[in-house]
Amino acid sequence: MLFSYAAKNREERIDQMMAVLKTTWKTSYVSVRDGMYPIITKKFLLPEILHTDGIGSKGIYHWRARTFRAAALDALAMNLNDLAMVGAVPYALQNNLMLPKDDHHAIIEVLKTLARECKKRSIVMTGGETPIHEDMEGLDVSITIAGFIPKIRNNAARPGDVLVGLRSSGLHSNGFTKVRRVLGDRFIKECTTPTKIYIDDILPLLKHHDIHAMMHITGGGFAKLRGILGRDLDAHVDQPKKLSPQHIFHELFTRGVSSKEMYSTFNCGVGFVIAVPKRGSDKVVKVLPGGALLGEVVNGTGHIRISSAFDGREVSF
Amino acid sequence: MLFSYAAKNREERIDQMMAVLKTTWKTSYVSVRDGMYPIITKKFLLPEILHTDGIGSKGIYHWRARTFRAAALDALAMNLNDLAMVGAVPYALQNNLMLPKDDHHAIIEVLKTLARECKKRSIVMTGGETPIHEDMEGLDVSITIAGFIPKIRNNAARPGDVLVGLRSSGLHSNGFTKVRRVLGDRFIKECTTPTKIYIDDILPLLKHHDIHAMMHITGGGFAKLRGILGRDLDAHVDQPKKLSPQHIFHELFTRGVSSKEMYSTFNCGVGFVIAVPKRGSDKVVKVLPGGALLGEVVNGTGHIRISSAFDGREVSF
Repeated sequence: MLFSYAAKNREERIDQMMAVLKTTWKTSYVSVRDGMYPIITKKFLLPEILHTDGIGSKGIYHWRARTFRAAALDALAMNLNDLAMVGAVPYALQNNLMLPKDDHHAIIEVLKTLARECKKRSIVMTGGETPIHEDMEGLDVSITIAGFIPKIRNNAARPGDVLVGLRSSGLHSNGFTKVRRVLGDRFIKECTTPTKIYIDDILPLLKHHDIHAMMHITGGGFAKLRGILGRDLDAHVDQPKKLSPQHIFHELFTRGVSSKEMYSTFNCGVGFVIAVPKRGSDKVVKVLPGGALLGEVVNGTGHIRISSAFDGREVSF
Repeated sequence: MLFSYAAKNREERIDQMMAVLKTTWKTSYVSVRDGMYPIITKKFLLPEILHTDGIGSKGIYHWRARTFRAAALDALAMNLNDLAMVGAVPYALQNNLMLPKDDHHAIIEVLKTLARECKKRSIVMTGGETPIHEDMEGLDVSITIAGFIPKIRNNAARPGDVLVGLRSSGLHSNGFTKVRRVLGDRFIKECTTPTKIYIDDILPLLKHHDIHAMMHITGGGFAKLRGILGRDLDAHVDQPKKLSPQHIFHELFTRGVSSKEMYSTFNCGVGFVIAVPKRGSDKVVKVLPGGALLGEVVNGTGHIRISSAFDGREVSF
């Protein structure tokens, strides 16, 4: 079933939801008799990937502020940016929208936002579900995306590589359990800013430049760089002004989160990191909107050393 | 990220979770450097389908009774039975396990159950996420499955067809909002019985028999048959003893749910319905475990007429 959805005017509302989804379908997608199953006709026999991610407790802020558009963008960004890391081209999307109570406006806002973004990128929305969990504190938008992989890449940095950072839009969609603990019940507008989507800049980059490794900076912050360092390399990070932490990060630091915890929990202004050979790295920086030199990769033991933009001290983990 | 998962002994626990998933991988699935992305190598260029479904408020009962194995089977069954309807062969699975609090035992139980069931059917578990939503009352297991479609089928019954019903295991995973309203806080063991999986019987059936239409009886009960009737056919249903409602359904009926509401909310003993030509239908019944003649398809206006097994009255909707 496309939407498991129990409500009074169920049929009519499902029709509305289907109408939104159908805006992302092309003639190569046909549907079966009960109108519920768009079938994806494959054109190329390429390896593929399935990926799932949601917005976690950021959904509590979106529900309170009714920022449903931003909630949808967050969920989409979390998935698309992870796909970018493996150079995967997204082609189909299933959404799982969990609400603490039935709210047709919220459902349609989320679907419309997803549909608009999917159309831009030729992603077909194949369906989803909208369960109501009455005791949840916020909403959750969880998305599963299928992507094909034109070329399987070895995602590993090399000694001597330069790290290029891409500007984040703020907190993105991770670390909100910590944020809630620090901020308590205070509502800060920055808590609903949607996550930046990097895939549209990354995929073309892979065609024309020698990219050794990529990392989406999410939960775990800069510790995620270990994924591209392995056990024989270290990363030295020194944030340039262009990538310095936004106000919200300074606010959290001021309220007692240490530099080390800041960098191992949040993106601190840098949402995506790319490792490239030093030679030619200036060109990569130039073509990437919001890109700047962030640091370097050296022989080591899998550690990340950061000169903290909060207090100037050196942080290491 | 395979599992978005913030916990103290995070690495070790993710290793444990990954170990379970990896039992479903074969050599044709390779993983990228950060160990997180199994890549599916396609062998056939066939149309495919993505499908998502979860267990909804049945998760409240599973959480209370700690019946995690049954919760995993429920989520899997809901998806596999929907795939059966379009004759799709499942090949990859992403899971989204939402918990009201961190519970490693629950996570591993769910993953192990899914892995065991996936291995049986050559489905690769490509990953998922395990968000903690502290204010949820129960858990939710939501699954997205990718399946390929060897042959696109027109899922429509024809006048003169016979309806074959397949025995359910009880409530399955729908109508639990209603169940809770009727039963209140009473805990009934039947509320955690896992949903029956039909796909293993259905897919071989499609190869050797002329099947006009299929319907997984979920939320909406027998009203789901409209999906295969369209506007020009009616279904006449008269449950044989072999498919009569289990005790839990009589309990709900006794507590005030009308026959009409019973049949338009619950499966009432019949979890899957198949429309086949009358000639040869005896053979279909014979090869299907738990199968029995349930009724017939006649010219009409898209209505379902049922002789109620609860009070003998005729129900129509």
